[in-house]
Amino acid sequence: MKINEHYTEIGNNYLFAEIAKRVREYKAKEPGKQVISLGIGDITQPIAPAVIEAIHRATDEMTDTSTLRGYSPDSGYDFLVQAILKHEFTDRGIHVEADEIIVSDGAKSDTGNIGDILSPDNTVAITDPAYPVYVDTSIMAGRRIELLPCTPANGFLPSFPKQKTDVIYLCYPNNPTGTALTRGQLKTWVDYAITNRSLILFDAAYEAFISQQDVPHSIFEIEGARQVAIEFRSFSKTAGFTGLRCGYTVVPKDLTAETSKGEKISLNALWKRRQSTKFNGTAYIIQRGAEAVYTPEGQRQTRETIAYYMHNAGIIRDALESAGLICYGGINAPYIWCRTPDGLTSWQFFDLLLDRVQVVGTPGSGFGPSGEGFFRFTAFGKREDTLEAVSRIKSLL
Amino acid sequence: MKINEHYTEIGNNYLFAEIAKRVREYKAKEPGKQVISLGIGDITQPIAPAVIEAIHRATDEMTDTSTLRGYSPDSGYDFLVQAILKHEFTDRGIHVEADEIIVSDGAKSDTGNIGDILSPDNTVAITDPAYPVYVDTSIMAGRRIELLPCTPANGFLPSFPKQKTDVIYLCYPNNPTGTALTRGQLKTWVDYAITNRSLILFDAAYEAFISQQDVPHSIFEIEGARQVAIEFRSFSKTAGFTGLRCGYTVVPKDLTAETSKGEKISLNALWKRRQSTKFNGTAYIIQRGAEAVYTPEGQRQTRETIAYYMHNAGIIRDALESAGLICYGGINAPYIWCRTPDGLTSWQFFDLLLDRVQVVGTPGSGFGPSGEGFFRFTAFGKREDTLEAVSRIKSLL
Repeated sequence: MKINEHYTEIGNNYLFAEIAKRVREYKAKEPGKQVISLGIGDITQPIAPAVIEAIHRATDEMTDTSTLRGYSPDSGYDFLVQAILKHEFTDRGIHVEADEIIVSDGAKSDTGNIGDILSPDNTVAITDPAYPVYVDTSIMAGRRIELLPCTPANGFLPSFPKQKTDVIYLCYPNNPTGTALTRGQLKTWVDYAITNRSLILFDAAYEAFISQQDVPHSIFEIEGARQVAIEFRSFSKTAGFTGLRCGYTVVPKDLTAETSKGEKISLNALWKRRQSTKFNGTAYIIQRGAEAVYTPEGQRQTRETIAYYMHNAGIIRDALESAGLICYGGINAPYIWCRTPDGLTSWQFFDLLLDRVQVVGTPGSGFGPSGEGFFRFTAFGKREDTLEAVSRIKSLL
Repeated sequence: MKINEHYTEIGNNYLFAEIAKRVREYKAKEPGKQVISLGIGDITQPIAPAVIEAIHRATDEMTDTSTLRGYSPDSGYDFLVQAILKHEFTDRGIHVEADEIIVSDGAKSDTGNIGDILSPDNTVAITDPAYPVYVDTSIMAGRRIELLPCTPANGFLPSFPKQKTDVIYLCYPNNPTGTALTRGQLKTWVDYAITNRSLILFDAAYEAFISQQDVPHSIFEIEGARQVAIEFRSFSKTAGFTGLRCGYTVVPKDLTAETSKGEKISLNALWKRRQSTKFNGTAYIIQRGAEAVYTPEGQRQTRETIAYYMHNAGIIRDALESAGLICYGGINAPYIWCRTPDGLTSWQFFDLLLDRVQVVGTPGSGFGPSGEGFFRFTAFGKREDTLEAVSRIKSLL
């Protein structure tokens, strides 16, 4: 048998695996030292009690033949789809329909698998720096990639691709830079996609952290987006589901493509076909947990946790700036993106922080070439760890 | 953008979606009639109490910062990997190593996604009839398929492919025919794969239902299989996890391929790279539930449930045979595969059973051309439903 040789074209190490390895090696060398991680964007605060209660209730249903649930409907249970529809879209005046929401086990799976329904010949534009999944999965499929630099020089607003582009990944609020686009800025991209018949893959995993009025929560707030965009959403950061696994993807029925025979194909139908063939639904008990995010208690509890993380973001940004670092993000996203000091490379700064003050962050260069010379801190730590970490960093700089 | 046009080459309807549609339409037409399904292989018996308790305990851990779990390790938690290793392999004298077991959200995802790491140029051989995922995902990737008929004429033992084949899907105990291979029969396939440098994708989702001594539970019982096979396992049928979602795939480190540059590549590393890039782990609470399957109580409870289903299998097979139908399977698998009476096509028999006695089964032709003229019944019903269904069928025939 032959393998998919495009796999040999990607780096050997997934960014976070490399970080974990360096931390493991450091801890083996220095077992007495206490390492604090503001690195991978994993949650540290308890799951909302409303979610926990819903999971317990649903788990108990699995003990009785009359309430037991087996295979989930392919696109998710209607109770969850309806809760998402109402709270995320309808109540905000955004036009999305129930059968356009497809529940999954998380946005990483969906942003990774979406390429399945697209031609390998498609060219792809990806903002740089970016969440590594967009680049890695595009390489795995053999697609030509154009990177769109996002730096302080352009205010982290990418320029349009130089070459004709079929597919564009946008993630706003952005991971890793923590920056956001205004409605007006996002509209220029929707207009570009309409003109160029491009598809926008919009990763909105961090929309719950938006604090400013002119930042859109969904690309479907923008006129025309229903013809050109797919949106990815996640409960991971919104409600702490990194260890529970639930997300959803919105594929509007207005989004179509023409085959080489001139046949019009709905991407909504294609994605559902992909999911019904290669995925078997998200666990019932997890979907009940996700539904509970939308109860009044669930909303109050998850918003408190988001406020807690965003308070951390303020602490990090203030401390780094007072130590003389130039920082971005942290206003509409749980990430602070700072320039490394003294011209250090991203990995040099990583090693310096680990060796000298036992603080772990994420080297910007791991997110792409335009990330070189930058460093990402996440606001997902515990308060005491965050305070201790910034205090150590300040003492070093 | 252009779509993956191979998607237009597959049928519009996933088999079980078409069945669900016909049942829905029938119920709308005849709201008073009570329909019994022995169709889709979904479970009806409660989840083992040991599993339920483990999920509750793990869910409570998510309420406390000191026990909270975020992202799972990419290949699954060590507690689950070690439990699988010991009970499924080491205790049975089968050589598998811990880092060869990769936990997932189920065998459907893994059998569907495994093609990602293989060249689209690979040719594929698939037993016919088969679980539709093998054919559909091969078509989606644009691979040439050779079907290997399995019928009473060859005792459901497929002949070797006529053309050189890179990848071979085998599912034993088999879905849909319910038949099994002996160790000797499976060895001829391992030998074929070694000689022809083929890869065997071995779906062992039903191994827990094996009752006969000479039927292998794992392809890794066969000498040489570690060089040529990947095995898919599932908790769905073993422990009723259809609605909880957990499975695992075993990729031996002995399994390698050569690139066009002559470089030797480990498929274990490739699959881990695929999963760490396009998947974010199975929920912690679900992995704790799966671990509990291997406690003494979990083993006793899940074995009782399997015995319950296999008792159903005996009831179905006996009743259908006494009604004059020719039946296969039901000994080492929870499926009974019977010839349709009076030369009816599979869908004609489906409509007859639904219209006349309100019993739902699965048309054999939905599993491939060699399934035409056959019909699948599953043993996963409740006892009373199973008895009522076979009584209705007997009254009809």
